[in-house]
Amino acid sequence: MNREEVLEALREAMPEKRYVHTLGVEKTALELADHYKIDRDQASTAALLHDYAKYMNKEEMMGIMVEQKMDPKLFTYNQELWHAPVGAFFAKTKFGVEDEVILSAIACHTTGNAAMSTLDKILYLADYTEPNRSFPGVYKARRLSFDSLDNAMLFALSNTITFLVTKRQPIFPDTFEAYNYFARLQFEGEV
Amino acid sequence: MNREEVLEALREAMPEKRYVHTLGVEKTALELADHYKIDRDQASTAALLHDYAKYMNKEEMMGIMVEQKMDPKLFTYNQELWHAPVGAFFAKTKFGVEDEVILSAIACHTTGNAAMSTLDKILYLADYTEPNRSFPGVYKARRLSFDSLDNAMLFALSNTITFLVTKRQPIFPDTFEAYNYFARLQFEGEV
Repeated sequence: MNREEVLEALREAMPEKRYVHTLGVEKTALELADHYKIDRDQASTAALLHDYAKYMNKEEMMGIMVEQKMDPKLFTYNQELWHAPVGAFFAKTKFGVEDEVILSAIACHTTGNAAMSTLDKILYLADYTEPNRSFPGVYKARRLSFDSLDNAMLFALSNTITFLVTKRQPIFPDTFEAYNYFARLQFEGEV
Repeated sequence: MNREEVLEALREAMPEKRYVHTLGVEKTALELADHYKIDRDQASTAALLHDYAKYMNKEEMMGIMVEQKMDPKLFTYNQELWHAPVGAFFAKTKFGVEDEVILSAIACHTTGNAAMSTLDKILYLADYTEPNRSFPGVYKARRLSFDSLDNAMLFALSNTITFLVTKRQPIFPDTFEAYNYFARLQFEGEV
């Protein structure tokens, strides 16, 4: 599938606003890829496809999650988390992405985890800070992203957990484990 | 050991301020025990002994934790957490407490967990809200404690996690699991 075909598939799968967000994520992911000297094509593909499954029907997602033996914990947490691993499935099956680095970044872009690659962090942070995002702390998150991916991840995860706790929402264990991982790095002086 | 002997052992093991706190925890634990109609003696013993190990030497605590095969995760988290399970060990070996309900409450009084008994919750909340405590939210925590132990636990755990995240401190998994447990109860309408 060439770029135009991918963009066309995205436009069909999501409302205009989400499509604009997706292009914003790609823009930021490419800037971060250049800054941290990682492959641009991986960053672009991961960014473009990260929200492909976001508007998919709940039952269809559940069917894929069962069939693909995805982490059963997902079923007991907010449905909003499902589109990430299901998106990785579609990246592979519909868009022909075989690169595990890309698939991993798509799969963990909503929750994070305790073993994130550079591309995982870049997609997570690009999704959090792309130019259309507007929330308290977004400027700091952008600045930190170009200063230290680990420090920016700690900032983003801290904000996310605080937000979820304020709403008394359950927190997916991977998010909590990611937070602990980056919090520990800080105390080890690595952030 | 009679009450006077226990109090004397406590005075020897901790500074005056902590001893006063301990008596405050006992007072609140007894009020909650009466309110929720559970055994007063269990509440009193758990409260009196909960901080017995708090000022113990770090190496001594580590020795006990290894010897007693306590959760090895503890070693990688804040030492402040250790006195709870080590305290349960001393409740049993020094004070002759055999009642697992009491030992459990002492062991989890700092972290909480996802399977807390009524006494576990009462000790956790008495420790959080006893009359000498003063922090934003303590009045609400006291009120909630007499309204619903589960709702009060969710409030206390939310505050604790927010506080730790603000300081970018790692969070012990049991605390996080406790939070998720009580957050889910709320969504199931049981809080």
